[in-house]
Amino acid sequence: MELVDGEVKMEVPIGSDAVLVKNLYLSCDPYMRGRMREFLNSYIPPFVPGSVIEGYGVSRVVASNNPNFEVGDLVSGLTGWEEYCLIQKTESLKKIQVEDMPLSFHVGLLGMPGLTAYAGFYEVCSPHKGEYVFVSAASGAVGQLVGQLAKLHGCYVVGSAGTKEKVDLLKNKLGFDEAFNYKEESDLNVALKRYFPQGIDIYFDNVGGRMLDAALLNMRLHGRIAVCGVISQKGTFDVEGIKNIFALISKRVRMQGFLQSDYLHLFPQFLSFIIDHYKKGKIVYIEDMHEGLESAPAALVGLFSGKNVGKQVVCISPD
Amino acid sequence: MELVDGEVKMEVPIGSDAVLVKNLYLSCDPYMRGRMREFLNSYIPPFVPGSVIEGYGVSRVVASNNPNFEVGDLVSGLTGWEEYCLIQKTESLKKIQVEDMPLSFHVGLLGMPGLTAYAGFYEVCSPHKGEYVFVSAASGAVGQLVGQLAKLHGCYVVGSAGTKEKVDLLKNKLGFDEAFNYKEESDLNVALKRYFPQGIDIYFDNVGGRMLDAALLNMRLHGRIAVCGVISQKGTFDVEGIKNIFALISKRVRMQGFLQSDYLHLFPQFLSFIIDHYKKGKIVYIEDMHEGLESAPAALVGLFSGKNVGKQVVCISPD
Repeated sequence: MELVDGEVKMEVPIGSDAVLVKNLYLSCDPYMRGRMREFLNSYIPPFVPGSVIEGYGVSRVVASNNPNFEVGDLVSGLTGWEEYCLIQKTESLKKIQVEDMPLSFHVGLLGMPGLTAYAGFYEVCSPHKGEYVFVSAASGAVGQLVGQLAKLHGCYVVGSAGTKEKVDLLKNKLGFDEAFNYKEESDLNVALKRYFPQGIDIYFDNVGGRMLDAALLNMRLHGRIAVCGVISQKGTFDVEGIKNIFALISKRVRMQGFLQSDYLHLFPQFLSFIIDHYKKGKIVYIEDMHEGLESAPAALVGLFSGKNVGKQVVCISPD
Repeated sequence: MELVDGEVKMEVPIGSDAVLVKNLYLSCDPYMRGRMREFLNSYIPPFVPGSVIEGYGVSRVVASNNPNFEVGDLVSGLTGWEEYCLIQKTESLKKIQVEDMPLSFHVGLLGMPGLTAYAGFYEVCSPHKGEYVFVSAASGAVGQLVGQLAKLHGCYVVGSAGTKEKVDLLKNKLGFDEAFNYKEESDLNVALKRYFPQGIDIYFDNVGGRMLDAALLNMRLHGRIAVCGVISQKGTFDVEGIKNIFALISKRVRMQGFLQSDYLHLFPQFLSFIIDHYKKGKIVYIEDMHEGLESAPAALVGLFSGKNVGKQVVCISPD
C-alpha cells in the first residue's frame, strides 16, 4: 500500500448519479485481504493495483445530483480510502437515519460486521437456549457481538483470543462465561476439552486452520459450525489442511459457510434489535480507533497479527 | 482377522430373549474399518479383539423364545460373522416381510446402504430438479443408488470410480450422465471442471480427501455437500488435510455429515419407494457376491482398494 499526498479537484460530472463525499470513518476488515490476490473463486473481485483501496466507510455528502442523496446527508457504504471520494457505484450507499449512536458504529456494530454476527448466529447457527457456544477471534468486530447475542439467547459462551488484554475484555466487559488465550495453549484440542467438557453445540468460526480442526473433535451430536472467516490462514492456497472432517459424520455436524450479503432483507430488524439492546445497555461494542488516513495501511495489516482490540476503524475526520 | 474352524453347540438359554439364527448373507461395509481401531469419538464402539466380527446380515431363525421371532422367520440386522449366531441384542433385527426381491438386498438396496443413499440424497442434499450432482465412489453400495435417485429427480449426474469397468457400469447400466476414472486424472480439480463447467450443486461425498478438496473448488453458490464417508482415508488421524474450506464461505456452501440411523423413521417410505421403482425397472442394483465365510475377510479388506464392483456381500448359505 502506498500513501499518496497531493491535491486534486473533484466534482460530480454533469448527468452523473455519482456522489461526492467527505470520508469520516473508514473500516478495516479481514475480507479486504482476499481482494489483494488474484483469486477467481472469491465472491468479490480483486483490487486493481495502483488504484484507491475500496472499503466500507461513513461519509458526508458534499455534492450530489443523485435524487437519493442531498448535500449534508450522512451515508454508509463502500467508499474509497481517501479524504474525499467520488462514489460512482452508489448501490451500497445507505443514508444514516439513526440518531444517538456513534457514527463509526455504522461500519461496525450497525454495519457489515454487525449483520454478519446477527445473521450468522440466528440464521446459520440455529441456536437453542442452554447450548454450548464457542467463538474464535472473539473480541473482534464480529466475534464480540456473536458472544453477546449468544448470552442474550441463554447460551453458555466461551471465546478465544490472542492476548491477555482481550481475554480480560471477553470475561469482564463482554460477558463471556469463559475465555482463553489460544497462543498460550500447546494443544487446542486439550484446551477446548477443558472449557467444554460436555462438548460444543455451536462453533462460530472466524479463524479456520488449527482451531477449526480442534473444534471438530469437540463437537456435540448435531452440532453446527458457522464458517465466517479464515483469518488464521495467511494465503488462500498455502493453508493448513483440516484433518478431522470425519467428525462431521460421527457427530452429524452441519458446517455452513455464509456471507451477510445474503441476509440484507434482515437489515431493518437487525438494526432495531441492536439499537434497542445497545440503548438499554444490554450490548456493548469495543472499537479500536486510529486517527488519520496515514494510519490506515498499518491498521489494516495489524488485523492479521491481532494488533486490533475490537473493531478496527480509522477516523479520517470526526465531522 | 482369523478364520476359526470347529464345532460348537449353540442354544438359546432358558429365559433369554436371544435368537439363534443361521446366517445366509453377510454384508461388508466401509464403516466396519472404523470399528477396528480405538477411536473414542466415533458413533459405534470398537470391535473387541478375539471376538466374532459383527456386521449386518440376512439370517433365518432356527431357535427362539423371543415372542417377536419364530423359527423359520427371515430377519435382517446385526449378526456375527459365523455360520450360526446366537444374537443377544435383538434391537436391530427386523423380520423380512418383502417378497419377490433377492434376500441379499436386505443388506444393500433395501438395508443400511439403501437408507443411507435415500436419506442422504433427499434429506441432506435438498435436491432440486435440474441441479448438477456429483457422486464419488459412485458404483459402490451407496453411490450407485444416489446417482439413480438423482436421475429420477431430474438432476444431471456425474460419478467417479476407480476402474474402467466401473465407469462403464455407471454410464451404461446405472444411468449416470457421465462418469470418470479418478485414477486416470492427474488433477481432480481439472477433471471436475471438465465434467461440471457450470459447477456442482450437490456433492455426495463417499471418499473425503483429495476429491473433497477438489469438489470444494467447484461448488456453485449455495451448494450442498453430504459427507457420507471417507473411504479414501486409510486411518482416522493420518489423513490428507482439506485445504479449500474457504470455498464454503465464498460459495455459501452447506457441508453436512449424517448417518442413516438418524432417519429410521423414514424406513417404511424408503422401502416402499425403492421396491416400487425396482419392480418397475426404474432402479437397478449391482452386487459383488462372494461365496463362503472363508471369503469374508478378503471381501471386507477389498473394499478399501476398490476391489468390489457394487455392493459387497458374502453368501454363507443360500437358504
